[in-house]
Amino acid sequence: MTAEIICVGTEILLGNIVNTNAAFMAEKLARLGISCYYQSVVGDNEGRLKEIALAAIKRSDIVIFSGGLGPTEDDLTKETVSEAFGRKLIEDEKAWKQIVKFFEKRKLKLTENNRKQALVPEGSVVLYNKNGTAPGIIIESDSTKAILLPGPPGELIPMWETYVDEYLMKQSAEFLLSETVKICGAGESMVETDLKDLIDGQANPTIATYAKVGEVHVRVTAKGSDEKECRKLIKPVVKEIKQRFGAKIFTTDENVTLEMSVIQLMMENKMTLTTAESLTGGMLCSRLVNVPGASNVLKQGLVTYSNKSKRKYLGVKRGTLDKHGAVSEQTAKEMAKGGAAQGKTDVCVSLTGIAGPGGGSEDKPVGLTYIAVCIDGKVKVREYLFEGERAKIRESATVAALTMLRSCLLESMTEKTFSTEK
Amino acid sequence: MTAEIICVGTEILLGNIVNTNAAFMAEKLARLGISCYYQSVVGDNEGRLKEIALAAIKRSDIVIFSGGLGPTEDDLTKETVSEAFGRKLIEDEKAWKQIVKFFEKRKLKLTENNRKQALVPEGSVVLYNKNGTAPGIIIESDSTKAILLPGPPGELIPMWETYVDEYLMKQSAEFLLSETVKICGAGESMVETDLKDLIDGQANPTIATYAKVGEVHVRVTAKGSDEKECRKLIKPVVKEIKQRFGAKIFTTDENVTLEMSVIQLMMENKMTLTTAESLTGGMLCSRLVNVPGASNVLKQGLVTYSNKSKRKYLGVKRGTLDKHGAVSEQTAKEMAKGGAAQGKTDVCVSLTGIAGPGGGSEDKPVGLTYIAVCIDGKVKVREYLFEGERAKIRESATVAALTMLRSCLLESMTEKTFSTEK
Repeated sequence: MTAEIICVGTEILLGNIVNTNAAFMAEKLARLGISCYYQSVVGDNEGRLKEIALAAIKRSDIVIFSGGLGPTEDDLTKETVSEAFGRKLIEDEKAWKQIVKFFEKRKLKLTENNRKQALVPEGSVVLYNKNGTAPGIIIESDSTKAILLPGPPGELIPMWETYVDEYLMKQSAEFLLSETVKICGAGESMVETDLKDLIDGQANPTIATYAKVGEVHVRVTAKGSDEKECRKLIKPVVKEIKQRFGAKIFTTDENVTLEMSVIQLMMENKMTLTTAESLTGGMLCSRLVNVPGASNVLKQGLVTYSNKSKRKYLGVKRGTLDKHGAVSEQTAKEMAKGGAAQGKTDVCVSLTGIAGPGGGSEDKPVGLTYIAVCIDGKVKVREYLFEGERAKIRESATVAALTMLRSCLLESMTEKTFSTEK
Repeated sequence: MTAEIICVGTEILLGNIVNTNAAFMAEKLARLGISCYYQSVVGDNEGRLKEIALAAIKRSDIVIFSGGLGPTEDDLTKETVSEAFGRKLIEDEKAWKQIVKFFEKRKLKLTENNRKQALVPEGSVVLYNKNGTAPGIIIESDSTKAILLPGPPGELIPMWETYVDEYLMKQSAEFLLSETVKICGAGESMVETDLKDLIDGQANPTIATYAKVGEVHVRVTAKGSDEKECRKLIKPVVKEIKQRFGAKIFTTDENVTLEMSVIQLMMENKMTLTTAESLTGGMLCSRLVNVPGASNVLKQGLVTYSNKSKRKYLGVKRGTLDKHGAVSEQTAKEMAKGGAAQGKTDVCVSLTGIAGPGGGSEDKPVGLTYIAVCIDGKVKVREYLFEGERAKIRESATVAALTMLRSCLLESMTEKTFSTEK
């Protein structure tokens, strides 16, 4: 089964927005095992939209459109696709009622234009929109299926998750299931090398690696007649990957991020955290705060950008700064120790480094970073050298700090278990 | 003149990466006044790449390809496009020397495959690559021009800026120039309404608005026979826009961000800054730190996530927290005042709010945020209600804090000027 994606919108053609919808849908299709060979972007222009739509309908089994379902005359996706399928547009009563309700709730004035949004092609499946006014639509013919979705990601994503995923799964004669193993603290080429025999030797399930900043995701995808069969195929492969990467695996749940796994680990162990940042300037703390419920763990984040503030808020000694400099193993250690002590938390993670573009020297080049973790008074420190621009170095340092914090937490928990057992 | 964009890469089709190259190139084309009606993505597959390339060459004056110039057999863009133009591939000596040098510098081993990267179509223009091994290529025929660029953004962007921008400018009979006016503290619809007469009344220069989170960019683009003529056309329009939006305009320099303009303003006035954040969790501080040289202004950032830390690091009174709550005008004020006093800086900006999804009530809904700015001991506070998900609320709050900080700085400077004049 093949699908292709057509995104309709002048704002994408003008480069005013990045086409994240295409990436979202492409990833979902890949996960369902549906081959996607083409993506296109076209504006709200009848002739060009028709040209692209007809070519797609001819060559692909499923054509997914996003955008162009708005209330204005410029919005032509529904009209153009209906025409290509030879269908009349008729009003869908439920869709119209939902539009009226949507406007009433927001105390907005309905215009005659909005009535256009309740029109759907005869004999189509209507995907009701809880987050906006344009319903989604599925049109089926013997040879092709077209799926029309609204452009705003806040409407497209929930609609995909509510209706489209399930619909596409049913289209396939085979059942497809995938599980993602997320690894931190290992590069993509290392993961690929370590899994080469598995990747080469497997046809079902397939194994693919995806590199993110500081993380590698390994997706195991099985084809089978039902979910149970797929799970059975996936299970031993995931088990083998777990054995090979051990504690470097932070989750096998697609929705769990690295920062979530850290917060979770600390919540389970009733531990509290202070962050002490320099070059990352609050990026680490901000990532942790993006986890709902982070306040159970994170008590404060101190961005000690000046030497004075490193002394005042973290108790770094003047002598240490004078002798070793702000970017040094010693300073990182004192930052972590002082951050935990002054912040009265079980744990403190600290970073100090040179983000560039200025400030580097032969001894201490741009990218040099020290990360320290203090747990219950004991400190560990590591040296890193990150590459790239200022923003990239800061992002890499942030992920490295999360990774190191996690591995130190796991180590300390193992030690505790051992000492309890004695 | 029309152009279209073809991005070649399986990783885009799989949704593994977001197609930022397309957005970058589309924006550049829009700025040059070149109409772009189509964007396509296709994988490293000869048949499909040829199909898409031939359709594009037929319908557009300029076809821009990115990706597929690598050393492996999968990389087919150069071969396919050369064939479409009926050109043989020959080795470019300079390109080969650069590849050898690139490998030597990095102490990497050259393989026979890399020789393929030095091949270019006969009679083409070679765009040498300082940041990678694949040279870019321009092929010209009577009717169409093809521009081939490497896929990694770190290679594509500098190559565009070094060669492609200038090449495209020369293709046009007319000279095009644009200036961007960046506005904060006003919504897009307000900006559009205030500029309606100008936008409707102008054909040359044209005026277009672009909405960013918390900012609106107004681009004024003139066509003329040379730069001088364009500048003359742009000048009175930009002057008029400046008169209408006054201090809400933070820059007319395309490369200056809102956080840069704030750091710049404080540097000029030799002022120092502390940030005191709650819901944004370091996002504000992190944005300021992304400005090289921020350390001249920013001394520390305190993320006081717990009530205890608000008292300890910012001196917020227990009574204030008990009576008014952590999310209140009073707490925001004490945070700003205490942050500046304890941090010994001239200025402190503070934020406290409810990021959600939990924690909201009828009285204090999710999104409610107080931002306070303390300058030389005087505090101002404002109430905001931001919409959206947790991440969106936090980002909106961060931009609002930068905007409010900037306007308070400008006010205090005006006051100072007045009192000095007396």
